[in-house]
Amino acid sequence: MSDRWMVEPIAYIRTDFSDKFGIPRQSGRAPSLMGRIVFEPKFRTPDAIRGIEGFSHLWLIFDFSKAHREGFSPVVRPPRLGGNRRVGVFASRSPFRPNPIGLTCVKLERVEFDENEGHVLIVSGVDLLNMTPIIDIKPYIPFADSHPDAVGSYADEESGHKLHVVFPDALLSIIPENKRAALIECLSDDPRPSYQHDPNRKYSMRYSSFDVHFHINGSTLEVVGVDEL
Amino acid sequence: MSDRWMVEPIAYIRTDFSDKFGIPRQSGRAPSLMGRIVFEPKFRTPDAIRGIEGFSHLWLIFDFSKAHREGFSPVVRPPRLGGNRRVGVFASRSPFRPNPIGLTCVKLERVEFDENEGHVLIVSGVDLLNMTPIIDIKPYIPFADSHPDAVGSYADEESGHKLHVVFPDALLSIIPENKRAALIECLSDDPRPSYQHDPNRKYSMRYSSFDVHFHINGSTLEVVGVDEL
Repeated sequence: MSDRWMVEPIAYIRTDFSDKFGIPRQSGRAPSLMGRIVFEPKFRTPDAIRGIEGFSHLWLIFDFSKAHREGFSPVVRPPRLGGNRRVGVFASRSPFRPNPIGLTCVKLERVEFDENEGHVLIVSGVDLLNMTPIIDIKPYIPFADSHPDAVGSYADEESGHKLHVVFPDALLSIIPENKRAALIECLSDDPRPSYQHDPNRKYSMRYSSFDVHFHINGSTLEVVGVDEL
Repeated sequence: MSDRWMVEPIAYIRTDFSDKFGIPRQSGRAPSLMGRIVFEPKFRTPDAIRGIEGFSHLWLIFDFSKAHREGFSPVVRPPRLGGNRRVGVFASRSPFRPNPIGLTCVKLERVEFDENEGHVLIVSGVDLLNMTPIIDIKPYIPFADSHPDAVGSYADEESGHKLHVVFPDALLSIIPENKRAALIECLSDDPRPSYQHDPNRKYSMRYSSFDVHFHINGSTLEVVGVDEL
């Protein structure tokens, strides 16, 4: 039986993260973080999204395009487990999977029309790299998709843990106003790998057209510099 | 940019539906309906599912293998809308999509070991055809995936509608005991296309190794025959 076939992107998402470091670890962790879904010319017709505004949330099925690997590794080491406990790839949301397909739920903010890009979807709560290929978009159906009582094993741990972010006004003012809330949400979500706890270490996170530099000491993150690229 | 690549099945699911008619329209509609996920030899190692039992629910990303089509149809006609209202394919869960990928949430009942099939996953609440190719399995993460307040447009309508099923004992006893509850759940979920309401029409649904014949009159479904195949 030959059940192999070719996937092709239907769209690409534009986000403020061109580097992996600092991207929220799951959707919704940074509710203000926006994405702009631009359809490929072949799929760029308002018909294909007719009625989509009736749904508050969407599933994006995407290509972990930076995680394509030859061969099959049955176990992965999720960063949330300190990077040294191994779990099965099918018990994780790791990007390194036999078929490198990701799944993420975003909020649909609105549909916009752009002269060059056609109808684009503006979504929030994203956790995707800029220019991630989207291979499908599906409406979120609460009665089938929402299971608030589900048990999430190790993914339940720490989900509420937030850092206190100190962002001096002089530095914050460098960031455009409409990008500040999302940046603070991403910082407060603790971008470090969970095995790093050196208070003297300076971290740099690429966000939009900025490099944001910070230290973390205990549960406080302090921004110490912002460079425009 | 070439972002086309080949998907390959990691597993196949065994279910009691070898025909489309009667399959629950979303996962969880027939909570007792079981599936048995058998990994392909290449991916058949207990390592790949290590830790999976810590999760109560799983996402199955699957191939709508009976819905592969050439060309792109931007609109579909969901059966729940009477089959004549068109919505955009990305505002629907229709199988007829540019990349024919499906998404469904199931409950993980247990992991079983079989001498020939290795470690298999027993799941419930399925809505898949027998032998559907599974291309990924991911744990359900409640804090990211569960949105009980999401708005589901037309998919919110009718979600609680159930038929009263009259299943005479003499007929029910033909069905193995452990397959009865799921069958009744599927029948009560009203297998008809929503535009058919002819009380004289006799329907036949293939279930496991049986053909189940019934009429529907108003909100009552009466089973009138069961044939073993």
